[in-house]
Parts: sequence; structure tokens; C-alpha cells
Amino acid sequence: MKARSAPDWQAYCEHRFVRDLAAGTLPEPAFQHYLKQDYLFLVQFARAWGLAVYKSRDLSEIRQGLDSLKAIVDVEIGLHVNYCASWGIDEAALAKLTASRATLAYTRYVLDAGMSGDLLDLHVALAPCIIGYGEIAGWILRQPFTKHEGNPYADWIAMYAGDEYQGLVASELEWLNRRLAGVDEQRMDQLSTVFGDATRLEADFWQMGLDLA
Amino acid sequence: MKARSAPDWQAYCEHRFVRDLAAGTLPEPAFQHYLKQDYLFLVQFARAWGLAVYKSRDLSEIRQGLDSLKAIVDVEIGLHVNYCASWGIDEAALAKLTASRATLAYTRYVLDAGMSGDLLDLHVALAPCIIGYGEIAGWILRQPFTKHEGNPYADWIAMYAGDEYQGLVASELEWLNRRLAGVDEQRMDQLSTVFGDATRLEADFWQMGLDLA
Amino acid sequence: MKARSAPDWQAYCEHRFVRDLAAGTLPEPAFQHYLKQDYLFLVQFARAWGLAVYKSRDLSEIRQGLDSLKAIVDVEIGLHVNYCASWGIDEAALAKLTASRATLAYTRYVLDAGMSGDLLDLHVALAPCIIGYGEIAGWILRQPFTKHEGNPYADWIAMYAGDEYQGLVASELEWLNRRLAGVDEQRMDQLSTVFGDATRLEADFWQMGLDLA
Amino acid sequence: MKARSAPDWQAYCEHRFVRDLAAGTLPEPAFQHYLKQDYLFLVQFARAWGLAVYKSRDLSEIRQGLDSLKAIVDVEIGLHVNYCASWGIDEAALAKLTASRATLAYTRYVLDAGMSGDLLDLHVALAPCIIGYGEIAGWILRQPFTKHEGNPYADWIAMYAGDEYQGLVASELEWLNRRLAGVDEQRMDQLSTVFGDATRLEADFWQMGLDLA
Repeated sequence: MKARSAPDWQAYCEHRFVRDLAAGTLPEPAFQHYLKQDYLFLVQFARAWGLAVYKSRDLSEIRQGLDSLKAIVDVEIGLHVNYCASWGIDEAALAKLTASRATLAYTRYVLDAGMSGDLLDLHVALAPCIIGYGEIAGWILRQPFTKHEGNPYADWIAMYAGDEYQGLVASELEWLNRRLAGVDEQRMDQLSTVFGDATRLEADFWQMGLDLA
Repeated sequence: MKARSAPDWQAYCEHRFVRDLAAGTLPEPAFQHYLKQDYLFLVQFARAWGLAVYKSRDLSEIRQGLDSLKAIVDVEIGLHVNYCASWGIDEAALAKLTASRATLAYTRYVLDAGMSGDLLDLHVALAPCIIGYGEIAGWILRQPFTKHEGNPYADWIAMYAGDEYQGLVASELEWLNRRLAGVDEQRMDQLSTVFGDATRLEADFWQMGLDLA
Repeated sequence: MKARSAPDWQAYCEHRFVRDLAAGTLPEPAFQHYLKQDYLFLVQFARAWGLAVYKSRDLSEIRQGLDSLKAIVDVEIGLHVNYCASWGIDEAALAKLTASRATLAYTRYVLDAGMSGDLLDLHVALAPCIIGYGEIAGWILRQPFTKHEGNPYADWIAMYAGDEYQGLVASELEWLNRRLAGVDEQRMDQLSTVFGDATRLEADFWQMGLDLA
Repeated sequence: MKARSAPDWQAYCEHRFVRDLAAGTLPEPAFQHYLKQDYLFLVQFARAWGLAVYKSRDLSEIRQGLDSLKAIVDVEIGLHVNYCASWGIDEAALAKLTASRATLAYTRYVLDAGMSGDLLDLHVALAPCIIGYGEIAGWILRQPFTKHEGNPYADWIAMYAGDEYQGLVASELEWLNRRLAGVDEQRMDQLSTVFGDATRLEADFWQMGLDLA
């Protein structure tokens, strides 16, 4: 799928937002705008895992969706709120946010792809986010221009490059590859469309940060 | 799929309701109860084709769902209302009906299978109805005990045995077989479960007629 | 709503299955059949709370759905598996069960009511289960024929009559009453239909136990 | 709702794309890009009316959804294809289009609002499109800078200002106002959020035309 959407995938993973974040030169307001919208994204992401539970055909699929849902709601949202606070964004501000267009676009695309398709469509629509962030963190580590000392975004990089997140990526990849092994050509075409659309919408999420839009 | 659910499929297709209807000995109240609930069934069936339109990935799938939706809402419901009138059930009575359990069970099963799965799950859940009625009509014609002259249910048999309905069955079968050709074993297991469940719930729909429940 | 569906509500709450269970005279196979199907019910119930998460408009609604989902998947299903074991039903048997019609009917009705309506429809469709079991346990305690000593079903009664479950019922009732306070007549009619249908389907779940069907 | 989203509503209705179209100065590639994406929009719009049929509680709601669905699939898409042809865009080109971000954003927002909410949420999410185009056509007619003679977009203006489309707007408004009369404050807040989001996403659809993005 990455091969089929190669230009879009590269444009997403190596987006200027990512480059500037790696170099530590990303303007702080851009990062703060991104952080705020990422909070709204997490709320919709929780809805997507609720949808995964609904779409489950057995208890093991339910448990998989529930684990992801708990990770978001019980852990990540709390961490995100704290991290936002360290950037001067308090919880009251988060509660009053208006969703940016890029946030609405990607989150609703995922939810509709998952609802109108099946569980595999949902995971594929989430892949640019889940798998992508893992790749992006790895890519950042390999770039010569990446700055570690004194980079205000070092924590962000460390989190997505860390073992915990990379383990989550590996297990999602394993699940996806297992499921994708059984699909025929026509289904692969459908799923590649979902993957390509979602990748472009994730790139827009970076652009939104730069544009403060 | 029929082979995998053979006992349930036979129990449905050769149900006592069907046998008595073929022989012309089915009590009229049983048939009238069936007709009334079938009206409520058609309304939910229309919702299922609305769902098929929502689930579509392109315009040709949308048109297929819309054709079925129009067939139900613009043609079949009207014919059904007229046919009910010929059995002494007027439209005011139809509007006030309470859904029987068997009606709720089959219709909601179809809608949930279609919503939680994909378009193929939806068609498979509808197959015992669409394909089944075609087979049942054919089976009735081949039985020695089937009575044509003076059978109060002759019109019903003629409709489902007729070229128009059989053509619809053939085209649905063709679509299903084309789609099923591309699925792997695990998917076939899932779809067979849906088919088996739906077959048992359709058999209950006949039983509901006999039980006046 | 209970008043509008009074005969159905009473038929459900004071069903012969409930009476015989209270008196300790319910045949064990009936209870075992009920327990097995209740396991399948819990799995679908988990899907319903996943749907509630999907249907949420904010984080507090998401947390409410998630709490219920965790209660089912992380606690109740485990307790149920243990309780089944104490009745001679092992986990391997649970994994191979075929859903009864009454199980399919009620669970899919709930899921479709929740999907096609909104979060309130979903809660109302679940109310005969959540609130109903609380009322039934209270009703059992008040009956002169209820047997406590030597009643093989004493644990079941104690669980639903206990403070933990009754607290859950109270908080669900509080939520429902708050939401229902704001709805107009037409909406109340819709919701009462959902409540009435769900009540009848829950009564069928008891009957399924008696019929071993 | 328009009052609550006044700046967004005005920004949408009086968008530069609309102004330039009224004045006849809109670059043709901008209009052609808009036309192409509007084709993809219509396909998703058809899915939304399929969803409306699924969400229906009775036959009259089903018929309302079906009428809109037929209007799109049996009439409007054909007219749109012909109109595109008159602008040099043939059907083969339409079949190969990739959806723009603004197209994905608005269409999926509508579908998710309708799926996660109820039929009223769906209609409210569609209102900026259905009602908005009617208002925009009326606004264009009242502007001093609007050019009729020799305006390449005169047909487009005439269609939306025409009696047929304005009648459709009036009947949708009437339905919405009837439904909205019965909702309480909290529900109105929810629906206003949907309306505001959808309005901003519709404004983005104009901007997409200007940006050729």
C-alpha cells in the first residue's frame, strides 16, 4: 500500500512540519496549534475504537478494540492534557476548541471508511496515523539535520521513537499484514484507495499546523 | 453455503407452512398473519436497501441498491397492500400493526449484519429471503401434493414461481457468486455463519404464521 | 414508559422463568440454557457499548460508554464464565455455542435501534435489561413463594439484588430520566415503541430458557 | 442556526468563488475543478440519502429519503454529466477523478454526523448545501455586480435560482423548521455545532475551486 501511494506517503512522512520539528525550528505556535487539534483528534480516535468494538465478530476482536480504546481514553488523553499544559495550553482551553477542517476531514473519513466498510477498512484508514507516526519517528532519527540537544520537540520525538510506541506499531503491522494476506485484488484496490486518501488527509494535518488554520 | 447449513436450509424451504400452503390446507388466519407481518418486513427491507446504498463504494453499487429500493417501495409495497386488501386486510390495519418477534428478529439481524459487516454480508443475510423464496416456489411446483386448482394461495405461488421473480433471483445469485468467488476461507466462515443465522430466522418467520404469534 | 407498556413489562418481570427461579423449582437445564445464551448476549452487549462510544458527542459520553464496556468485558464476562463453570458449562462449550433466536432477536434489535437512532434510543433499548433485572430481583425478594435456603439460584438472585448491581441500576435510571425530561411528545412515542419492543424481546429470552430453544 | 453561525454562514454564501462566478470573472479552470469535485460530491450525497432511508422510522420517512435519492441518481447526476461535457469534461475523466480534501471533508462529515446522530442531524448537516445553494442563488441575483449577459456561469445561476430548485429548498426548510420546533436547548446546541461545522466545510469547497487543490 505504501508503494501504491508512494508520493503521498513520502509527502506525509517527510512533510515540512516534520522536518522543522526534527530540526527544532518549527515555530512554537504551529506546534501548539497541532497539539490542540491533536486533542480533538484523540477524542474522535476514541470513537473509532468504539466503532471497532461494534464491528467485532468475536470476543478477541472486541478485546483488541477495547485495549486500544483504553489506551486512548485512560492513558493517552491524560498524557496529552499534561503535555499540552507544559506548552501553556490548559484543559479549559482544550474544552473550548473548534475543530479545524483538517481535523474534521481525517477523523470523519476514518469513521465513515470504518462504518461503511468493515474492521479491516477501519484499521487501514487508521494506519497512516498509527504506523505513520512510528515511521516518522524512525525517519527523524536518521536525518542529519535532526537536533536532539535543546530541541523543544525532543520529548515528542522520543515518545514516538520509544519502545512502547514502536511495540504498538509492530503489533498493528502484524495484525494488518495477517489480514491483508487473505484479500483478493479487487479488495486490495479498495483498501489502497482508503489508505491513499487517509495518507493525504494526514499530510493535511501537518499542513494545518503550519497554516494555523 | 446451502450445503454448510443444509438441515436449517431444508427446514426453512420445506417448512410446514410452505407445505400446507402448497397443498392449499394452510389455515387462512395463518396466511393473513404472515401477510401482515410481511408488510412490516418490507418496510425494514427498504431500510436494508437504503443501507446498501450507504455502503456502496461506487455509482454502480449505488444504482444496484437503488433499483432494489425502488422495487420495494414503488412497486412491491403497493402490490402487497392490494394483495392484503384481497385477503380482507385494509391499509389502516397495516398501519397499526405491532411487529412480531420473528419479524423483529430477522429484520434487525439483517440490518446489523449489513451495518457491522460490508455489502457482501448484507446480501448474504438477505439471501435466504431473496434466493430462498425463489427456491421454495420451485420446490412447491415439483411436489405431488401441490394443489393448483382452487388453492387459495395459487396467486402467491405463481408470483414467486413467475419469470419476473425468478429473473431477480438469478441476477442476485449471479452477483453473489461473483463476489463469493474472491473470498478466502476465513471470510467464507463468517459469511456462512450469517447465512445460517438468517436461514433459521427466516424459518421462524414461517413458524410465526402457524403460531399466530 | 413502563406504564405505556404495562402488560408487556409485567409479563417480562413476572415471567414463569422468573417465578420458578425464585421458587427454586426452575429445571436446571432451563437455567443452563439461559446461562449459555446469556454469555452470547454479553458479547453482543459489549458491541452495544462500543456503539455507545462511537455515538458519543464528547469525552464524558465516551467515558460513560467505556466504563460500561470495561464492566462487561473485563469483569462480567469473566464472572459469567466462572459461574457457568460452577453449573458444569466449560469455556470450550461457550465458545462453540450457536445463538438462539431469542438471543439474536433482542441483541440485534438493540444494536439497530441504537445505530439508526441516537444514544438515547440505545439506552432505552437496553433499559429492559439493565433496569429490568434490578426490578426483577427486587420483585423476587418481595414474593411469598421465594425460597432462599437451598435455592440453587440463590447466588443469581443475590447478585442482582445486591448493592453493586442496584447502584448501577440507579445511576442508569438517573441518566435516563435526565435525558427523557427534555424530549417532546413525538420523540417519547418513538422511544416508547423501542422500549416496548425491547421488553417483549427480553420476555422471549426467559421463554427461550423454558423452551430450551 | 444561521444567526449562531453568522460569520461562517456569510463567509460561505458570499465567498469569493461565488462573487467571481456572479460577476462572470471566475477563471474557467476554477469552475471546472469545482464541477469535477461536485460530481464526486453527488455520489457521496447519494450515499447520504441511502443513509436517510436506513435511518427512517416509517414508510413516509423512507419515501422522503428515496425521493431525494432518485432525484440525485436518476436525474441530477445525469444532468451534471451533461453539464460537465459542455465544459469539456467527459465521463471517462469523471470516472478517474481523485477526491479533493475538501470533498472528502464535507461528505464524510455529513455521513458521520448522520450516522452517529439521527435523521435530523443528517438533514442539518446537509442544510448548508441544500438550503445554502438556494440562498446563494438569491443573493447573486440581488448583487449589482452580477452579470447576466455573456456570463459563462449564467446557466448555473439560473438553475439554482429557478423555481424547481427553489421549491425543493422551500420544502426542505419547511421539514427542518417543523422538526426543529420540538427540540430542547441542549439538542439545539448539538445541531448548531453540526450546522456550523458543515457550513465551514462547504466554504472550503468553494475555496478548493479557487485553489485547484
